[in-house]
Amino acid sequence: MAAQPPARPRRLLPLSLGLFQVALILFFALFVTYGEPSERAEDASLAAKQLYGTFPLFQDIQVMLVVGLGLLLTFLPRYGLSVLTHNFLLLNFSTQWALVLQGLLQRFHHGQIQLELRSLLLAEFAAVTVLISVGAVLGRTSPCQLLIVAACEVPAYLASEWVIAAHLGVLDVGGTITIHIFSCYFGLGVSKALFGRGRQLLHPKETPTPRSDLTSLLGTLILWVFWPSFVAVLCQPGDAQHRAILNTILAMSASAVTTVVASSLLEDGRLSPGHLQNGSLAGGVAVGAVADMTMPPVAALALGSLSAMVCVLGFRFLTPFLRRKLVLQDHCGIHNLHGLPGILGAVASAVVILVAPKDTSRSPFSQVSPAGVNTSEVAVGQWGEHGAGGQALCQAAGLAVAICGSLLTGLLTGAMLRLPCLAQPPEQHCFEDSLNFSTQGQAESLELGGTIEEGALALKERV
Amino acid sequence: MAAQPPARPRRLLPLSLGLFQVALILFFALFVTYGEPSERAEDASLAAKQLYGTFPLFQDIQVMLVVGLGLLLTFLPRYGLSVLTHNFLLLNFSTQWALVLQGLLQRFHHGQIQLELRSLLLAEFAAVTVLISVGAVLGRTSPCQLLIVAACEVPAYLASEWVIAAHLGVLDVGGTITIHIFSCYFGLGVSKALFGRGRQLLHPKETPTPRSDLTSLLGTLILWVFWPSFVAVLCQPGDAQHRAILNTILAMSASAVTTVVASSLLEDGRLSPGHLQNGSLAGGVAVGAVADMTMPPVAALALGSLSAMVCVLGFRFLTPFLRRKLVLQDHCGIHNLHGLPGILGAVASAVVILVAPKDTSRSPFSQVSPAGVNTSEVAVGQWGEHGAGGQALCQAAGLAVAICGSLLTGLLTGAMLRLPCLAQPPEQHCFEDSLNFSTQGQAESLELGGTIEEGALALKERV
Amino acid sequence: MAAQPPARPRRLLPLSLGLFQVALILFFALFVTYGEPSERAEDASLAAKQLYGTFPLFQDIQVMLVVGLGLLLTFLPRYGLSVLTHNFLLLNFSTQWALVLQGLLQRFHHGQIQLELRSLLLAEFAAVTVLISVGAVLGRTSPCQLLIVAACEVPAYLASEWVIAAHLGVLDVGGTITIHIFSCYFGLGVSKALFGRGRQLLHPKETPTPRSDLTSLLGTLILWVFWPSFVAVLCQPGDAQHRAILNTILAMSASAVTTVVASSLLEDGRLSPGHLQNGSLAGGVAVGAVADMTMPPVAALALGSLSAMVCVLGFRFLTPFLRRKLVLQDHCGIHNLHGLPGILGAVASAVVILVAPKDTSRSPFSQVSPAGVNTSEVAVGQWGEHGAGGQALCQAAGLAVAICGSLLTGLLTGAMLRLPCLAQPPEQHCFEDSLNFSTQGQAESLELGGTIEEGALALKERV
Repeated sequence: MAAQPPARPRRLLPLSLGLFQVALILFFALFVTYGEPSERAEDASLAAKQLYGTFPLFQDIQVMLVVGLGLLLTFLPRYGLSVLTHNFLLLNFSTQWALVLQGLLQRFHHGQIQLELRSLLLAEFAAVTVLISVGAVLGRTSPCQLLIVAACEVPAYLASEWVIAAHLGVLDVGGTITIHIFSCYFGLGVSKALFGRGRQLLHPKETPTPRSDLTSLLGTLILWVFWPSFVAVLCQPGDAQHRAILNTILAMSASAVTTVVASSLLEDGRLSPGHLQNGSLAGGVAVGAVADMTMPPVAALALGSLSAMVCVLGFRFLTPFLRRKLVLQDHCGIHNLHGLPGILGAVASAVVILVAPKDTSRSPFSQVSPAGVNTSEVAVGQWGEHGAGGQALCQAAGLAVAICGSLLTGLLTGAMLRLPCLAQPPEQHCFEDSLNFSTQGQAESLELGGTIEEGALALKERV
Repeated sequence: MAAQPPARPRRLLPLSLGLFQVALILFFALFVTYGEPSERAEDASLAAKQLYGTFPLFQDIQVMLVVGLGLLLTFLPRYGLSVLTHNFLLLNFSTQWALVLQGLLQRFHHGQIQLELRSLLLAEFAAVTVLISVGAVLGRTSPCQLLIVAACEVPAYLASEWVIAAHLGVLDVGGTITIHIFSCYFGLGVSKALFGRGRQLLHPKETPTPRSDLTSLLGTLILWVFWPSFVAVLCQPGDAQHRAILNTILAMSASAVTTVVASSLLEDGRLSPGHLQNGSLAGGVAVGAVADMTMPPVAALALGSLSAMVCVLGFRFLTPFLRRKLVLQDHCGIHNLHGLPGILGAVASAVVILVAPKDTSRSPFSQVSPAGVNTSEVAVGQWGEHGAGGQALCQAAGLAVAICGSLLTGLLTGAMLRLPCLAQPPEQHCFEDSLNFSTQGQAESLELGGTIEEGALALKERV
Repeated sequence: MAAQPPARPRRLLPLSLGLFQVALILFFALFVTYGEPSERAEDASLAAKQLYGTFPLFQDIQVMLVVGLGLLLTFLPRYGLSVLTHNFLLLNFSTQWALVLQGLLQRFHHGQIQLELRSLLLAEFAAVTVLISVGAVLGRTSPCQLLIVAACEVPAYLASEWVIAAHLGVLDVGGTITIHIFSCYFGLGVSKALFGRGRQLLHPKETPTPRSDLTSLLGTLILWVFWPSFVAVLCQPGDAQHRAILNTILAMSASAVTTVVASSLLEDGRLSPGHLQNGSLAGGVAVGAVADMTMPPVAALALGSLSAMVCVLGFRFLTPFLRRKLVLQDHCGIHNLHGLPGILGAVASAVVILVAPKDTSRSPFSQVSPAGVNTSEVAVGQWGEHGAGGQALCQAAGLAVAICGSLLTGLLTGAMLRLPCLAQPPEQHCFEDSLNFSTQGQAESLELGGTIEEGALALKERV
């Protein structure tokens, strides 16, 4: 509250964002249309049925992204309004941007792009990568910088997803490789390029309070509840979807219990709120690549348990190590929640493919990748053209592509963020809502007026 | 905490509300019944299918009204328990009251009223108007006064809705005119009649804190996520419902982005929490009247963008103007969120009708108005008996009826609220939970005991 | 913060829980498998349809248990992280444990246990009993003690449920008797055996603050919204399910209004947050046993109204009485929310059976008990072999079995909890998150450093 943040680039955010919105409207006016209405009664009934199948899951995912993820980030005690708002803004901006790019690349027929609920869903999957990535740099970045991240990451994701799903035929119905691993290393790349030259390492305002830990844990619980919808929404309806839901629930249940075990071992009998907030979700990240495969339920349990362990160990040992040795900031620990369990899940998918029973290997393929490329054409019959060994190699190749592609594009994006016009906040104003919000005379009422007594009284009023 | 609120009308609330509940039970005993069970297996299967189609949307709407709207109102920092409770009580009271009135007016056959999920849904739509209207007077009114508002507004809404939907054949699947505009001007009428004679204009306890802004924003996000269900629940299943969902999502996404643009332009590069809490939802209000019409997707985007702009401008310029010039209180800014975007949406519906392609104009009509009057009989074929021009005029007439009817009945209701027996709270106790809640010795623990040290310690304990 | 809690049994929780998790994985590896994939297209389509019918309700229930119930318990102002975490851990542990036991007892065919979404749902119903029961002892118990409660209660519940539903053929689709009454008296038994020898009666940290009352009320509202899904999920699709949903909504709406009436009568015109948090849900507890029966809607309204009254009166008069006379702790008032309304609901079910119209008595039987025993074979035609009078007697017998069985097993479990190795927290550390959570240097920043001024400043920073 002492010094005001620098006043210079006040207009950059509204002008660039406003321009984008106008351009989007023009683009929609020129190219985007709804599908033809169903002519026949049966078609209409089928359309209604498909809608009833997808829409509840779509809403679940919306709750996850807007409410759950937003709340999860409120562990920063003085930055809650900002994280909720940035998360919300980035979701909308990235979804719109992904709609444009996906429309141009994949859905452009006869000069028109047909919009349907499914396109929105796929665009939201692209937006998820942005929401995860910014977790590495949240609190020390301006809204303009975050929008640049979104603008760069969405096309990078679409390219990487295209290579991984359509070309390599990687099986990854829940986005373990294409979404979680990609966004994690993209975010770490951005963070390294932006902050990697020796910064104050832990900001005092980064430390959570009991109350901010509570709202953050609430976000975790919301994500935990709806995660099965996220994994299963693109599955083939029927057995595969049923299996994906069950596997995700089992993995996340094992994660929850194992997180308590691991955290209380490491913390001398108590629990760390940060471990709980992240470890409970690790199973959901890891299980995505194998959720709809025909594997015994125990595999999901074991995978969930392992990934929670890896996540908690990562928080305890790897994050401090990376911060010290590689000068790598990772404010929300995305490497522990998305990176490590993601790699575990990718490895697990290769293993499951290698040891899966051959006669039922037909059914795992009836899936669609997050970008909407139907991989069933790539991989049919006995693991398609590759055979099980080839498919397992493909999974490994997909993992490599995701990590390398995201690190590279992330580093480039991070370098771009160092442009001075982007208004990176000064260190003393980081993690502070007053940087982004006008507070209508709230600050004044908190000033220590005259005597301590008045101050304490004012405080009392506000509790 | 100094002076206790006046002790007189302690028994009015429980007695009147208890009486209502007894009367309701008697009414149900005499007249209300469930529909006949389906005799044939196909009927039962159809009933199950319809239930699966409607129930998830119904639950979404319940979450919006009970949790989302309740939280949105918690921006009043010391009045959170009261707004959550009043919102919850009014929802239940108004729904029950609307069930009685709707039953008598529309569903009374052979001395019986058949109850089904759909009746509950329509009754909740009536209750929504009450929840919106009280936003104008919240914090300075007693529960008794709020119940009087509900008692008067529900029949007024049903009458207005009947004229607008059944007689004028206005197309308004999402309730833009019938719900949002009606409730906005009803609420403003109440506020004007009740407070319009020169009051202290801004109560110090009205100012939000960062924490109350956070919970309020959380409410906005919940409303934002589930709004498509609200707009689409009464649509014809199939294409029209699909279109309504997509249009609503597009409009609200544009609203979210445009709100950030507009707010940061007006606030010199920062954001106002109030703008975000309301502007992000403006698109949903505006799109209701056109959501299921056959219009290109760009129309939804543009409408959402415009309505957010109008809403933010309203908060910045119109609300202070109304407060100064018309001595008009509008605590929650319902005119900016429901009034202005509603008018925009009504105008948009007339425009869309005028310029809509003629050959597909059949499909927008397969809709049902919020009060359950199937308007498809009114308007069939080429915009029914009216033609496109006539239908556009009807929309305008509906807008006029909604505004005039609601203002008039609202003013009358507000005049009634001035009855002294209704226990309007004294100004110094407004916006204060202790007015409505017994706090079991909480206040004591907060008293500044003896020394500052003890007080600070007690505070510390409570953080 | 003065004295650290005793350091001895640091390893008991992680070791025992870790062992359980390993045993669970082994058990799954040996016995659990997914069902055969549907061979024919019709079967697959049917499976998909069933999934779409159940999964949204399943998700609703997950939200209730993880988010709603967790938040409801946060009325303890300094114990929020702990209640959310314990609730979450107990849900996962108990569900896994119930999956094992149910699998062994009911689903063991040819050395294999087939897992499906329905098994998970039934296991969660068993877990619900644990979540309710621990409400009596929350805050004064260690995680180890709570896990012992779960370990003992799940088999006790399964046994009691088997007797009540399969042997006595009790009709109880919403678990009023089998879940709510059982868990209530089990919890009271535990509390009596554990604390019944004269303890400090009201801990100062038990008193809610306005903010903790707000989050707790939020939990109530979430439970209130989704309760119909809980009651209806096991109903026969079609009319019975529709009726169950409507009855539950009516009962809970009446509860909400009646709670306000009763509370403001008792509290001299104001409301008690505790009454609202519990009374609003009482109707949902009571209506469970009759929700799908063919009774007029007025019965649901009256039942909801009565149960709210009983619940509020219980809080006001019975809880203090039990505490004084029977030295019975009931921190969350589970007897008022689950016990009294449950008994009311059980009595109501007998009454409805006695006075129900005979010709339609076929339809209430098409139900499945929470443990998955299809009671339709027990009770067919004119109330099966018993006739209406016999069936009503069965309901009474079920009530008696639930109360006696749960009290007995609860007392035994509570006696076990007195083992010193279970690390019951010392009284001065009860209701305090710091007992269970490591707080990463948060406590330090709160220490009153040097002068009052600094302390007040630090406080200000944290508000």
